[in-house]
Amino acid sequence: MSKTIAINAGSSSLKFTLFEMPEEQVISSGIIERIGLKDSIFTTKYNGEKYNIVEDIENHEIAIQKVLDKLIELNVIENYEEIEGVGHRVVAGGEDFKESALIDNDVLAKIERLADLAPLHNPANATGIKAFKKLLPNITSVAVFDTSFHANMPAVNYLYSIPMEYYEKHAARKYGAHGTSHQYVSERAAEMLDRPLEDLKLITCHLGNGGSITAVQGGKSIDTSMGFTPLAGITMGTRTGDIDASIIPYLMEKEGITDINEMINVFNKKSGLLGLSGVSSDMRDVEDAAAEGNERAQLSLDIFYNRVQKYIGQYVALMNGVDAIVFTAGIGENSAETREILIDGINWFGAEIDKEKNAVRGEERIISTDDSKVKVLLIPTDEEVMIARDVERLKK
Amino acid sequence: MSKTIAINAGSSSLKFTLFEMPEEQVISSGIIERIGLKDSIFTTKYNGEKYNIVEDIENHEIAIQKVLDKLIELNVIENYEEIEGVGHRVVAGGEDFKESALIDNDVLAKIERLADLAPLHNPANATGIKAFKKLLPNITSVAVFDTSFHANMPAVNYLYSIPMEYYEKHAARKYGAHGTSHQYVSERAAEMLDRPLEDLKLITCHLGNGGSITAVQGGKSIDTSMGFTPLAGITMGTRTGDIDASIIPYLMEKEGITDINEMINVFNKKSGLLGLSGVSSDMRDVEDAAAEGNERAQLSLDIFYNRVQKYIGQYVALMNGVDAIVFTAGIGENSAETREILIDGINWFGAEIDKEKNAVRGEERIISTDDSKVKVLLIPTDEEVMIARDVERLKK
Repeated sequence: MSKTIAINAGSSSLKFTLFEMPEEQVISSGIIERIGLKDSIFTTKYNGEKYNIVEDIENHEIAIQKVLDKLIELNVIENYEEIEGVGHRVVAGGEDFKESALIDNDVLAKIERLADLAPLHNPANATGIKAFKKLLPNITSVAVFDTSFHANMPAVNYLYSIPMEYYEKHAARKYGAHGTSHQYVSERAAEMLDRPLEDLKLITCHLGNGGSITAVQGGKSIDTSMGFTPLAGITMGTRTGDIDASIIPYLMEKEGITDINEMINVFNKKSGLLGLSGVSSDMRDVEDAAAEGNERAQLSLDIFYNRVQKYIGQYVALMNGVDAIVFTAGIGENSAETREILIDGINWFGAEIDKEKNAVRGEERIISTDDSKVKVLLIPTDEEVMIARDVERLKK
Repeated sequence: MSKTIAINAGSSSLKFTLFEMPEEQVISSGIIERIGLKDSIFTTKYNGEKYNIVEDIENHEIAIQKVLDKLIELNVIENYEEIEGVGHRVVAGGEDFKESALIDNDVLAKIERLADLAPLHNPANATGIKAFKKLLPNITSVAVFDTSFHANMPAVNYLYSIPMEYYEKHAARKYGAHGTSHQYVSERAAEMLDRPLEDLKLITCHLGNGGSITAVQGGKSIDTSMGFTPLAGITMGTRTGDIDASIIPYLMEKEGITDINEMINVFNKKSGLLGLSGVSSDMRDVEDAAAEGNERAQLSLDIFYNRVQKYIGQYVALMNGVDAIVFTAGIGENSAETREILIDGINWFGAEIDKEKNAVRGEERIISTDDSKVKVLLIPTDEEVMIARDVERLKK
């Protein structure tokens, strides 16, 4: 029995979950937001209680120290060393990391070099790793990559139709993301359907503020909607998803933008539901606006549904069939309406939602009718437990 | 009874077809290649004979003069004025042209302004228009746009998930191309299936050196794979098709490319089958190389099949079903192997190829089995007759 902590560090946030392993029991979890800004918010959950503190937290190292001290204060741990392993979520592993890795200086340097592939995420992930290393230099430290589950896609799916030397020289290809989540829900889906994962064709829809769809055949990701970076794929909270590349020089000229990175920044941060609706990047806000008669908000939702449905169709074609469609992450777990609209619109494929079973939030269950040829599942994701499992596995 | 000529002007080429209208009878056709280069090649077909001339042809105006003089020499016409109408293929009509238009100075100016949307094509199309206007100033002159058939797509499909003001201010949206071809084969498909076009869900696959897939519901294009320009969609002879936009700044930095237009040029002219295979942009060459054991050529073909199949799947989802899949254009009409591979790989949708019926080149026929739930059709395209029809219609 030992304690393992899963860390997800963003540019100004840090999420943690402390597990008792190998029982996979969550002891405590929490989040620090607004790191480096005034009035950082530190929330901890333990024993059914929630603790909130608002104070200035300057950087990730201080944030982690606060977390550890809070865990001592709450008598969750007696000292820092009681935590034997830490697992860090890292968004981009590129071609270097096809699976989780014990972190040494070389691994850390590689993660930092891979920032090209996830400019918003990898530097923040690296900051979290460094901060932890400083405070707990001797514990097992593992990097769990969002891309690993996709790392063995066949070339036919990961290659872009660009000159081959761009792939050979610069590793310019599709990497995908959310791999840990897609893998977790795939494994759970097989258990819930009581069928061997090896025999299943699954389409897993991770629909959150960022979103991606994955074709999982025989337990392996064979294709996914995110691309070289998490910009591509479906319409997201603030990201464009797929777009004609040649629109970039046109818009740059029309808008007087001279730096392409500025344009890509607009595509990453001011597009998607936010850019389309003009209301919010949060699906719930856009739904509320649409319900109040805001036509542009309704159109934005329709575009979101449309892109998700088209990706599902793509992957039905790719796998030449589908056994089950799985919904997870913020929108996928909580919006019964979204799930119903998405599946009703493609019922030709043989999937039928059971409205009663679907009337639920964040609960693991089959939400298709008993007769439905293609099953539909709602599975709350758990990236943290996957991270803790990898720490446990690599500790030995 | 009158004569109408359909013109398709490229940057260094000019294709023509002379019709007797309204009979839609082709009297003569031909092509001039290498205009503006040494040893231009001028080919004319008339009465089952083929005439080849190699000589320097400096510009499009001279090219057209050569065509008209040749037609007189062959006694096809007695004088220039006998041709009462000319129809020009124009690739991009933007939001200005939702249907074919009689060409006046204003229309011509708009076509030239729309070059942003088809930088390789519109300037060449305009050159053809101007050359013809000079030689035959008084005939009915009509522009037939490749985008018109797609111009009434629903917003949910033509909008990109970018800030809405980019669409409102700059008309940045999906336009598609090959509309005349998709429309022609859709109409023929309904006739061949002996069903009203209004009732049909069709997926039309125009597979040539450029290629696009269209979802045709009730006779209307509701979505298509090409985008803001003809760069997007499936893998093509030299074009990337869909790609993660954020790969552009990465490749520019790695390759030391400072002008984004240079990068887009690589995506348009050195990518696709050519860039992937390193062999050729011509499907037949790539097929030959693959047959001789070139693995990279085989992978390029597999990527092509994969992208087409994924688009078919998208559009099955979008229309929530499909009645027939139609193949046309160079590859679609001539490669029985491609058609078979494409359909066999997605037979879960209920389409089944009849190998015997499929063993044909460029002949109009149903190539699925009698039992096939989804029909598969081979229909040679005829953009020229569509152009001539629009000239005839607008002449009145």
